[in-house]
Amino acid sequence: MKVPMTINDFLDRGVAVYPDRVAIVDEPDQPAPSLGEITYAQLGDIRRQMGVAMDELGLEMGARVAMVSHNSARLLTSFFGVSGNGRVFVPINFRLSKPEIEYIIEHSGAEALLIDPELEADLAGIDVKHTWIMGPESDGFWYGREGTPQPWEPDEDATASINYTSGTTARPKGVEQTHRARWTNAAIFGWMAGVSDRDVYLHTLPMFHCDGWGMLYTVTAMGVKHVVLRKVDGAEILRRVDEHGVTLMCGAPAVVSAVLDAAADWDGEIPGRGTVRIVVAGAPPPTAIIERVETELGWEFIQIYGLTETAPLITMNRCRQEWDELSSLERAQKLSRAGAPVSGSKPRSTPRARSWPVATTS
Amino acid sequence: MKVPMTINDFLDRGVAVYPDRVAIVDEPDQPAPSLGEITYAQLGDIRRQMGVAMDELGLEMGARVAMVSHNSARLLTSFFGVSGNGRVFVPINFRLSKPEIEYIIEHSGAEALLIDPELEADLAGIDVKHTWIMGPESDGFWYGREGTPQPWEPDEDATASINYTSGTTARPKGVEQTHRARWTNAAIFGWMAGVSDRDVYLHTLPMFHCDGWGMLYTVTAMGVKHVVLRKVDGAEILRRVDEHGVTLMCGAPAVVSAVLDAAADWDGEIPGRGTVRIVVAGAPPPTAIIERVETELGWEFIQIYGLTETAPLITMNRCRQEWDELSSLERAQKLSRAGAPVSGSKPRSTPRARSWPVATTS
Repeated sequence: MKVPMTINDFLDRGVAVYPDRVAIVDEPDQPAPSLGEITYAQLGDIRRQMGVAMDELGLEMGARVAMVSHNSARLLTSFFGVSGNGRVFVPINFRLSKPEIEYIIEHSGAEALLIDPELEADLAGIDVKHTWIMGPESDGFWYGREGTPQPWEPDEDATASINYTSGTTARPKGVEQTHRARWTNAAIFGWMAGVSDRDVYLHTLPMFHCDGWGMLYTVTAMGVKHVVLRKVDGAEILRRVDEHGVTLMCGAPAVVSAVLDAAADWDGEIPGRGTVRIVVAGAPPPTAIIERVETELGWEFIQIYGLTETAPLITMNRCRQEWDELSSLERAQKLSRAGAPVSGSKPRSTPRARSWPVATTS
Repeated sequence: MKVPMTINDFLDRGVAVYPDRVAIVDEPDQPAPSLGEITYAQLGDIRRQMGVAMDELGLEMGARVAMVSHNSARLLTSFFGVSGNGRVFVPINFRLSKPEIEYIIEHSGAEALLIDPELEADLAGIDVKHTWIMGPESDGFWYGREGTPQPWEPDEDATASINYTSGTTARPKGVEQTHRARWTNAAIFGWMAGVSDRDVYLHTLPMFHCDGWGMLYTVTAMGVKHVVLRKVDGAEILRRVDEHGVTLMCGAPAVVSAVLDAAADWDGEIPGRGTVRIVVAGAPPPTAIIERVETELGWEFIQIYGLTETAPLITMNRCRQEWDELSSLERAQKLSRAGAPVSGSKPRSTPRARSWPVATTS
């Protein structure tokens, strides 16, 4: 029997193995009321509740639900609540212009839309059949429901989410992420980045970026605490690391720079020394920045490369044992490249002498 | 595009990323000449060579190649050389009786057979169309070849290997392991056990046991050194840990007991303290034994549960942060259970209060 791979595998494990752990610590400071802390058992229940809500809307399996939002617990629950019930989640970059967002909503065929309160004025006039400003009103509809949702027959080839590229050369292009693509990316990312149930994850990466590079599924399987961060701010990142014992974060090079700047003004020992790994992609940072992550923060720098179109992880560059004895500068030079193929991505063959002599009894 | 998952993904990565690392350290003491050390680039080339050899035998894609052998480099290369070229590998338990082995060879439809020299007398008379006693003669046929093998169109639903169960209740039953089942097991096992490219693996588990529980694929993707161990011997295990810096091994509880016995007589500090993880399955060891792994060896004890029929990993029990402050006895009690579902296996739901109140603005 072939068991279909779906994103539910990750939350199912989080719920079954770590029900009482805190799954989500919502951003305390945001326009909508903070959702506070949500356990894994509760997150599993929210998935059920959102399924019931979509049934009430009359959304067929495969229907699209869009959300334009900063990082928030409401956004995070929706990856599981929407895709986990057979509908397609469309997380939209809140930095896009109104016409671009309109285009994406139209193009994706979204039948339901949730908008961050901060964007309410900017996006006025955009609506679809069912539209909410995120907060008490949307919570009252989407959460807290009784009942059992219409069952979804797990299908790994079904689309879980659609991520729109930034549209630098043309209109944004929608990349349909299948459950299988999400699953394999999340498992391999977890393996190669060494994600364990001792990690604490800080959302320094926008979740709309290819479903947070898939890392939001990865850490969920391990019962990891998701600490939501609404806006990148170096000092705030250091405070959250300190407060929550964060060990893992992802982001663009700008996140690294923000943390380094804040560290220069930080009073006392930098939190997370020897325990935090920061996974960086988007553009290769300068070697000097990479070196400073080691020397000034004492954090591990991991570089990855990928495309939304590849789900996204293709390569990873993480310090190898062979580099342990190098100077911090030499190590930073090694880490300034995109790295090596992860398992399952197709490496080019490496030209190298590799014949192997047959042993003889001499 | 859906990329098929095959066992080649693991060796392809080992070859591309770690070509000059030592892939295999063959057992020095064995009836056939030791193959010594083989790099990842060479292991990749051996896969090619074995493909050419199977073409010469006229073996069609899907044909079965059987091997009855103790752990050895020749056995290990064949998992990649046979399955990696679209044929089906049948590693047979060398402890079975001659009639059982005959049955398996017949039942699997093996067209080629390799036999460990130590078993030559016991298995005299068993042969198929192409039969070798492993050593210089078989090496001369299987290894050292020029040319390019007939290409295999990767197919994740194709059978990679057939593992025969021990037949306690009836004739041994052959379990066909698809490439997909091998891939998902190896990736999840690697993730959940935290296998990294800093590990060194000792083959304390017979490779014929469900392809070494799939761990032999896992570690290959990470460029890990495979240290072959032909026979379980506690003192020899400790010596290999010391000599090769072994960090990871798998085995039945008997392996644990053998190591503990040897440790009692060991002169000086036990090697691997704080760095070795031992993954145990087959039967749950007594709590006292689990505790001694921590207190006497300083190794991490990980328990898993699975069946050959489930490819095999279903559950894993590894110390959680929540147990760090327990006494070693309490921790051993926690670890004496089979554990929690790994990602992708289907957990039963956990009965627990898990409603979630909707936040209000108060």
